Amino acid sequence: MKNKGVLIVISGFAGSGKGTITKELLNRYDNYRLSVSATTRNPRPQEVDGKDYFFVTREEFEEMIAKEELLEYTEYVGNYYGTPKKYVEQMLSEGKDVILEIEYIGAFNAKKAFPEAVLIFITPPSVKEVYNRLKGRNTESEDVIIKRIKRGQEEAEIIDKYDYVIVNDDVETAILDIHNTIQCSKCSSVRNGDFVNKLKNEFDEFLKNY
Amino acid sequence: MKNKGVLIVISGFAGSGKGTITKELLNRYDNYRLSVSATTRNPRPQEVDGKDYFFVTREEFEEMIAKEELLEYTEYVGNYYGTPKKYVEQMLSEGKDVILEIEYIGAFNAKKAFPEAVLIFITPPSVKEVYNRLKGRNTESEDVIIKRIKRGQEEAEIIDKYDYVIVNDDVETAILDIHNTIQCSKCSSVRNGDFVNKLKNEFDEFLKNY
Repeated sequence: MKNKGVLIVISGFAGSGKGTITKELLNRYDNYRLSVSATTRNPRPQEVDGKDYFFVTREEFEEMIAKEELLEYTEYVGNYYGTPKKYVEQMLSEGKDVILEIEYIGAFNAKKAFPEAVLIFITPPSVKEVYNRLKGRNTESEDVIIKRIKRGQEEAEIIDKYDYVIVNDDVETAILDIHNTIQCSKCSSVRNGDFVNKLKNEFDEFLKNY
Repeated sequence: MKNKGVLIVISGFAGSGKGTITKELLNRYDNYRLSVSATTRNPRPQEVDGKDYFFVTREEFEEMIAKEELLEYTEYVGNYYGTPKKYVEQMLSEGKDVILEIEYIGAFNAKKAFPEAVLIFITPPSVKEVYNRLKGRNTESEDVIIKRIKRGQEEAEIIDKYDYVIVNDDVETAILDIHNTIQCSKCSSVRNGDFVNKLKNEFDEFLKNY
């Protein structure tokens, strides 16, 4: 039943804690792997090539598109972001559950390419809490925070296209909820067509003399 | 997020252990309630009215149908079986998760009446194991066992209409898988339209001056 890994897409509002949750899933359970995105944007201080992103040129990225080496890609504020297909497919076939932490356009493209993907949207319990968390970081101006909240307003319109909505009120609960949700998705009947076919064949075989 | 209870339909092959699993869910977790079916068939020895079934006459059952007091009903081998609506609706509104342990025709009727219902099909890992478990009970003749396996062959054709397939290889694992599956279904985005609408309103309110 649980042979092939699950492709998991995690998105969420700014301040939803999606980064922390993804990191904890990877730390605590050995079945998860993180897909590293390719991007044409410049590395920020402390970002490591091959760990945070694969930093590539625009020409290199467009070559990946042309060679169909990307599972999904989007262009956002003048830069490309995309998911290299090879690593994801290899990990899934080894039974690992692969996490993509990406924005919604990429999420829906990934779902198109992999209809079995599980799309999870993480949200704080309220917009007030979104604001408080962004404010509490003390790293962004009020203007930038308002921009992020406007982006949140836009994202709220498409949450219903995700499979699951997880409220990150208490981070421990949220981590466990997401882990369980991913693991339970392996029991969905759409993922178990092969097993059901095996049973059908066994019934036919068993009953052929009756 | 987790206010309203989930309607859970549990079905499975003879020998799947669905009865044991249902009993354990009810014993271990206080969020579950079992829906008691009404039937026109005669009580078996040790069956208790109001606990195993509500035993009613054909006239009484048909009155329940006429008054639309049943969530679903089917006629099977000359007898009616059905789920009284009132208890189920009351428990769901109190946030309890209500289990119906019923056959597939009833299951699909329940899904029609309650599209949010979670349909779970329980199966042993193989048909050989179905046979071994039925044989191991020492309560049924070979003829009856073969009849049950023929019924299983029929059921195998409709498993894909269930939401989840749970393999009961190890009963402890199966109980936990089913419990987690039910609880995770509460995070599905289709069940959380109200919460998402609340967020949308909060974004609009927050941003109205920007």
